[in-house]
Amino acid sequence: MTLLDQPHHDGSARYVPPGPHALGDVVPVRVAVPRAAGVRTVWLRTVLDGEPRITEARRETAAVDEGGEDAYVADVVVHHPSTSYRFLLDVPAAPAGYLWLDGEGVHERDVADTHDFRLLTAPPPPGWLADGTVYQVFPDRFARSAQADTHPTPDWAVPMDWDAEPARFGALTGQQLYGGDLAGVAEHLDHLESLGVRTLYLTPFFPGRSCHRYDASTFEHVDPLLGGDDALAALAAQVHARGMRLMGDITPNHTGAGHEWFVRAQADPAAPERELYLWEDTPGALDVDPRVRPGYVSWLGFSSLPKLDWSQDLVWQRMVDDDAAAIPRWLRRPDGSGYLDGWRVDVANMTGRYGVADRTVEISRRVRERATGINPEAALVGEHFFDWTGDLPGDGWHSAMNYSGFSRPVWGWLADAGSGLDFVSVPVARRPVPGRTAVAAMRDFGARVPWQVASVQLNNLGSHDTARLRTAVGSPERVELAAALLFTYPGVPMVFAGDEVGARGETGEHSRVTMAWDQAASGGPRWDTATLEVFRSLSRLRGGSEALRDGGLRWAVVDDDALVYVRESAGERLLVVVARAPWAGATLPARILGDGEPELVHGGALVGTPALDVVEAGARVGGEGPAVGVWRLA
Amino acid sequence: MTLLDQPHHDGSARYVPPGPHALGDVVPVRVAVPRAAGVRTVWLRTVLDGEPRITEARRETAAVDEGGEDAYVADVVVHHPSTSYRFLLDVPAAPAGYLWLDGEGVHERDVADTHDFRLLTAPPPPGWLADGTVYQVFPDRFARSAQADTHPTPDWAVPMDWDAEPARFGALTGQQLYGGDLAGVAEHLDHLESLGVRTLYLTPFFPGRSCHRYDASTFEHVDPLLGGDDALAALAAQVHARGMRLMGDITPNHTGAGHEWFVRAQADPAAPERELYLWEDTPGALDVDPRVRPGYVSWLGFSSLPKLDWSQDLVWQRMVDDDAAAIPRWLRRPDGSGYLDGWRVDVANMTGRYGVADRTVEISRRVRERATGINPEAALVGEHFFDWTGDLPGDGWHSAMNYSGFSRPVWGWLADAGSGLDFVSVPVARRPVPGRTAVAAMRDFGARVPWQVASVQLNNLGSHDTARLRTAVGSPERVELAAALLFTYPGVPMVFAGDEVGARGETGEHSRVTMAWDQAASGGPRWDTATLEVFRSLSRLRGGSEALRDGGLRWAVVDDDALVYVRESAGERLLVVVARAPWAGATLPARILGDGEPELVHGGALVGTPALDVVEAGARVGGEGPAVGVWRLA
Repeated sequence: MTLLDQPHHDGSARYVPPGPHALGDVVPVRVAVPRAAGVRTVWLRTVLDGEPRITEARRETAAVDEGGEDAYVADVVVHHPSTSYRFLLDVPAAPAGYLWLDGEGVHERDVADTHDFRLLTAPPPPGWLADGTVYQVFPDRFARSAQADTHPTPDWAVPMDWDAEPARFGALTGQQLYGGDLAGVAEHLDHLESLGVRTLYLTPFFPGRSCHRYDASTFEHVDPLLGGDDALAALAAQVHARGMRLMGDITPNHTGAGHEWFVRAQADPAAPERELYLWEDTPGALDVDPRVRPGYVSWLGFSSLPKLDWSQDLVWQRMVDDDAAAIPRWLRRPDGSGYLDGWRVDVANMTGRYGVADRTVEISRRVRERATGINPEAALVGEHFFDWTGDLPGDGWHSAMNYSGFSRPVWGWLADAGSGLDFVSVPVARRPVPGRTAVAAMRDFGARVPWQVASVQLNNLGSHDTARLRTAVGSPERVELAAALLFTYPGVPMVFAGDEVGARGETGEHSRVTMAWDQAASGGPRWDTATLEVFRSLSRLRGGSEALRDGGLRWAVVDDDALVYVRESAGERLLVVVARAPWAGATLPARILGDGEPELVHGGALVGTPALDVVEAGARVGGEGPAVGVWRLA
Repeated sequence: MTLLDQPHHDGSARYVPPGPHALGDVVPVRVAVPRAAGVRTVWLRTVLDGEPRITEARRETAAVDEGGEDAYVADVVVHHPSTSYRFLLDVPAAPAGYLWLDGEGVHERDVADTHDFRLLTAPPPPGWLADGTVYQVFPDRFARSAQADTHPTPDWAVPMDWDAEPARFGALTGQQLYGGDLAGVAEHLDHLESLGVRTLYLTPFFPGRSCHRYDASTFEHVDPLLGGDDALAALAAQVHARGMRLMGDITPNHTGAGHEWFVRAQADPAAPERELYLWEDTPGALDVDPRVRPGYVSWLGFSSLPKLDWSQDLVWQRMVDDDAAAIPRWLRRPDGSGYLDGWRVDVANMTGRYGVADRTVEISRRVRERATGINPEAALVGEHFFDWTGDLPGDGWHSAMNYSGFSRPVWGWLADAGSGLDFVSVPVARRPVPGRTAVAAMRDFGARVPWQVASVQLNNLGSHDTARLRTAVGSPERVELAAALLFTYPGVPMVFAGDEVGARGETGEHSRVTMAWDQAASGGPRWDTATLEVFRSLSRLRGGSEALRDGGLRWAVVDDDALVYVRESAGERLLVVVARAPWAGATLPARILGDGEPELVHGGALVGTPALDVVEAGARVGGEGPAVGVWRLA
């Protein structure tokens, strides 16, 4: 038996009619029930006003799969903006005589509601967000245009040669200025298109006193070092002309200490801007509190990043509500003005939290309302490295950067034990974990958010805050395995510029390496053309596949050394096999083959391609490894 | 290796200094780290304003146990009214190189914060709640005094002979009046004392049109059928004179359709009481909604129980805020007036929930504030059959009836497969589950609430809403096993009157059997004296043991057929073994023995007592079963 013999449901179109759903709607949801699972009856369990209701599902006889799988249908009444449900299965062979099916999978004991499926009344995320690869550019390190040479070096900066290695730690990391600019980005949009990129995400473009610019000195202008407002306008026009989208990076948790608001607030205790920040005498500060040094509260105690006080109306006005407020002012409007199609929201997990105060979800909802009021197609993606269980209800941030549910499990499964790297926030050297350990985290975290969120989570294999993928996994072959997961797993793939050419780096700061454009034509030590072709090919594969862009996921095999799953949309099914090492292989039930031969649509380039043989018992997946294979099923 | 070789922490006094803790406090918390666990370093992880902080714990060298266990100590800064933390362990032998330790146990993968430990600033629950057995009395079925014969039969009632069997289902179940009264309860307080009962919990004593009285017609008086207000006063005086506590049962979710408020509301649309209820035209009602028949919203659609609308100030006034409001008016006051030491809160899981509206936690907090404002020793226990994850933050209801974390797992482990009973809300016949399945649910649910809540959860083996324990498990021997768990597991043991003498019943209604006092002297088919002695003996054991009343729990063995754990307070440690069948036995590490011989303090009466032998490798627990044994460790 493989996991394909377990009953299955997810929020994708094969199982749930596409939303949005309105209060009062009756939504028929479907469960796939393999005969091998020994299920006698299926019930739907919803929770109405805090009390469960159990109703029997009907077997959809017309949909019976002769190959051994039944479909059951149950009606969910949308009685709440986030209506939760799961399934109860009468299974005589189960220990308790029954099983629960929720978003995490099948359980032989009573479970909490944490992983229940959910139907939302909130409008779904804009289609463009799911459609294609997101490409993250850290502007100082991507490309220098000719204009960049005309900019004077600011007082805080240490000018760097383009090819020099960034520092790993310390104050210098923020000072090393390589001088990339937005015109430089515009010069390389062909590179992005060749990668199948649909969304360009720029880390902050506001001026600051650092190369990372998370310490904005204003939200009203683009840093002149990047070319100023005109450069953003020009870049946005070119991005949009290619049919791509542009996403910015906003810091609602804090500004820079050099921000015009903070400067006024510090200079004059009577200035209205005083209200915008949290000071050492703001109620809620604790004596033992490292947050309130020196005299004001700052991000993780870094004095360069004073924290905004979202209990103050003025913060809402300046950040959200005013016409010229930071978040709305840069968004693209129906009249063609504005530049951005969305924001990545920095430190979303801390924004609005201070001691007892917790306005995080309220902020996400009001910002979404404001942004989509300006442009219904606007998207908002929160930064969240940790447990987002309470922070992604589905009507606030559209999704989050999916470190917990994707990056960390994949880093773990493919870790180079010799890298010496630690996990972000976990001070222990990474060690490769078995597939079951990685997948348990993927399933747990993946089911803690509604499908409408999970399907647009921003999956990534690294960012400007982490070690580089190539360094973490140790070889181009393992990079290919990781990339295969990135482009075939539910969610939106994000590539940090440079990963596609094998960039290396041991810390987030050390990873902010420049792009070696001079090696692009023929490859070089900082431009791995083989890896680039892997990324291009996988990105194209996803771009051309409805099942990969929008489909559900059904686990088939979770082996220590191999992960096998089926992605399925209304009209397409793909089988994905990723093996990190040789393994035993597996025989999948014949019914997954449908009415024809599986078609190999992607195979390994730096690694092998496993065999897939149609045998009497079903579909035999070979145990080759390392290997990658993707087949379209009939 | 047993589970005793895993690192351990819980909220009990061996690991956390007793609260209450104040904001800004630095609380040293301790972790037990067996050498066999291979731990190199221990870190504390807290979450401050949404961002984790990792700080290294120190090895408390003075506390090193020569037998093989180290103590580590870390400082938790109380920065939030519910400060969460867990531990990170550097373990080279673990797959990822590290393990997490949270309230559920040890994890080899990254986990969400759901099971984090928590320090609360809320005052702890009153000591009396944890101290002793709670005894649930359903007044109509417990005992008739001589006065009961003087009460006329109300129009809704079907008078019943005391020894007749109650109906299983249908309208009749609410109409069958056996005529028990409060004076009858008062006549049998010796029985309660002989059982070690410290708290008498009465299901509703308000008048209604049913024998269960959950359909109150007023909150201002005691049902004359029960003897009226004077009878409650007399009962309360006798209960308190014996040093016992008295708990009532309030229905903040609904009143009866015959309630004086609802009668006025229906008679006159202009009556102020109209605001108290939810009507079919109240916003939020859905066309498809079964809740709004006939014309008003009611509990699960039962028209006899119209639902209160907590969005209305008038509900707060009448239920909570006014001097004579339903909840405060019956509470005992420092001046000696009032009768109740607390309330069991009926349908707490639905109270204040209606569609989008969710004031459930707010209600629990404001009610606690009001009740403890009147009497700091007041206790509030919510009814909650399901997932209470969000409903028990620790500053609202002190705890809940622990069906999910105790009753259901124990029913499952000890189920009589031939009983044909289903699980409450799960329409599948119960089947016995292995120990691992039961304990997984106990650990999961147990860790979803702060220790301050978990330690006073109202554990029970049945109530007026469930089948009787004796019927569920099928034999007096299995009743003994269940009772052994009830009186030795963390939480407050609650006994539904009759369980201690082997009462039977197949549904909640069918279980509301009368007490056969005429058989008490010499036993009889409805008075199992052997089972009564088992309950008395276990209740006495708990009453005399600090470790059982207040201690933490450390799992030792979870076998399909045996559960073994250590209860430990600051000054006492007990080893508990409960086996449902013969099993392999286990060898526990020698260090648990301390400096002397283990002393058997409780053995099986209807079942056997396992052997506990000191052997070279440690403490050998014999594989006898069914068996119960409790030893005091040196």
